[in-house]
Amino acid sequence: MHASTDPVAPLDAPCSDAAGIAVAFDDILAAATRIAGHAHATPVLRSRLLDAAAGCQLYFKAEHLQRTGAFKFRGACNAVWSLDASVAERGVVTHSSGNHGAALALAAKTRGIACHVVVPEGAVRSKRSAIESYGATIHDCPAGLEARERRCAQVQRETGATLVHPYADGRVIAGQGTAALELLGATGPLPLDAIVVPVGGGGLAAGTAIAARALAPGCRVYVAEPAGAADTCQSLLRGERVTDVVPDTVCDGLRATVGAPNFALLQAHGVEALTVDDTDTIAAMRLLLQRTKQCVEPSSAIALAAILLHRDRFAGQRVGVVLSGGNIDLDALPWRQG
Amino acid sequence: MHASTDPVAPLDAPCSDAAGIAVAFDDILAAATRIAGHAHATPVLRSRLLDAAAGCQLYFKAEHLQRTGAFKFRGACNAVWSLDASVAERGVVTHSSGNHGAALALAAKTRGIACHVVVPEGAVRSKRSAIESYGATIHDCPAGLEARERRCAQVQRETGATLVHPYADGRVIAGQGTAALELLGATGPLPLDAIVVPVGGGGLAAGTAIAARALAPGCRVYVAEPAGAADTCQSLLRGERVTDVVPDTVCDGLRATVGAPNFALLQAHGVEALTVDDTDTIAAMRLLLQRTKQCVEPSSAIALAAILLHRDRFAGQRVGVVLSGGNIDLDALPWRQG
Repeated sequence: MHASTDPVAPLDAPCSDAAGIAVAFDDILAAATRIAGHAHATPVLRSRLLDAAAGCQLYFKAEHLQRTGAFKFRGACNAVWSLDASVAERGVVTHSSGNHGAALALAAKTRGIACHVVVPEGAVRSKRSAIESYGATIHDCPAGLEARERRCAQVQRETGATLVHPYADGRVIAGQGTAALELLGATGPLPLDAIVVPVGGGGLAAGTAIAARALAPGCRVYVAEPAGAADTCQSLLRGERVTDVVPDTVCDGLRATVGAPNFALLQAHGVEALTVDDTDTIAAMRLLLQRTKQCVEPSSAIALAAILLHRDRFAGQRVGVVLSGGNIDLDALPWRQG
Repeated sequence: MHASTDPVAPLDAPCSDAAGIAVAFDDILAAATRIAGHAHATPVLRSRLLDAAAGCQLYFKAEHLQRTGAFKFRGACNAVWSLDASVAERGVVTHSSGNHGAALALAAKTRGIACHVVVPEGAVRSKRSAIESYGATIHDCPAGLEARERRCAQVQRETGATLVHPYADGRVIAGQGTAALELLGATGPLPLDAIVVPVGGGGLAAGTAIAARALAPGCRVYVAEPAGAADTCQSLLRGERVTDVVPDTVCDGLRATVGAPNFALLQAHGVEALTVDDTDTIAAMRLLLQRTKQCVEPSSAIALAAILLHRDRFAGQRVGVVLSGGNIDLDALPWRQG
């Protein structure tokens, strides 16, 4: 693990120094051991109806059944349990409007240390409540990356807490990679032909790409990205990180700009991006609810939507799909009621 | 199996002749063998958050993950595969506004025989679509038991199809009992202290009571019933079947009056009834969605609601809960959107 554990590093530092983060398959194996007593080994679900709809064999890694309702707990847990005791006792801090905040809060609780979460205005109500329910201290701040970073740096100075970035962090990337590690291990001796995961900041995507290359070199990795927040897609096309996309999507977990180290890893592993309109994502979310009775958030359903939109690419194949989370606001479902 | 297989028996005949239906534990074992190649052995789900909320250990039998999205497939499948070939080839018929219709349609499809479903006006749209999607012939009829029975008898006369009643049928009761058979087998050597199931016509309830008595004699069986359709509760209190309750509940699967043979079996097995207001049922449905990401219909969530309402009765115990189905109309969720 090569990520900095300097508790007062500037928030975005790892992003601007891609060379500073190197994550290897061994880091994912170490993460798997580290989080084993805390995180769930989630099931892999099948649906013959969805197989028929997609024209391929789908293996759904059910991370919406992970603790805190999202894969984010894996990375947060790995980060928290990677810290030396003397560093850990000063607590951890992050900025998050959603699942990473709740994940870090619970991860800190498993180690009995303090957790601070900087939450911007406009965060989804239910996700804010979850962060509180796991016992973290919430620090409100205005929307916008700059305000978040300032508030986060202030908390670091005041408390000495270690920053655990939501995605541009080697410990976090390694932790997220354990989902694909389990998925590839559970789908039998015949390797998967492809894995599709959603992409926001790129923690899950980078970890998945590393695990897939090590365990199933022929397995292609696709990231599904909202058309209204397609910075990763544009970055991969241009060959350089695009940072000026203003996100406009129902996928509240995928509004972040891909991190610099994450982008470097996706590029190095030949990951391909598929963009999806929100209407298709919402249709996939409804389909999952109706057909599999599984409640996933739009930021997860997008992966199935991408497969349904690109049937030719996956026809007849064995395709892994990470259902990344299931935390939705039931009072604000993304479709109109009849 | 002692139920009549006379294909032209009047629809409600088994109800009015309780002595004509005797279901034994052996019938449930036979049903388990009969349906094994067709029905899913559904998982038993746990949730530490819901355990904490309920103050007991909950074992959720996930019948919303059963084929057709409800336990009903078990009974329908057992009935269809119980028929002699010469009888089966004339098809099956039932009346149902919901899950039993879809279940019988798919069960008939597994045997390659025709299925007729009499659907009353006002049936939930998504459930009607499901019946069609499994290839059954739908026969519309006005609402009300009398109209249904008349239409059903007419189809029987015209086609020679065998009636498979939704609940007042020994083959159906034995099939539904296989859910509890699996649940009691999956929850370890320590027997459950109680099982809670929803009650409408009483097929699942009767099958559960028979399985529990045979496998875990100390295990109490409770039925959860909507306060607005509490005929079973009133029947058990009075010691005779009450048939004049006009149902008014959001639980569309629980509006039927308890069948005569079903009531006789519930009485004989000392089953207790717990009534639940719709608001508590809807709250439990939301809780299951939020905390376990499982989409169940109100007619299923009522069982969890009953436990949360009667915490003292279950405190510290190991309690089985049959999540009986997950078929909801996503455009008409039973809560207001904010």
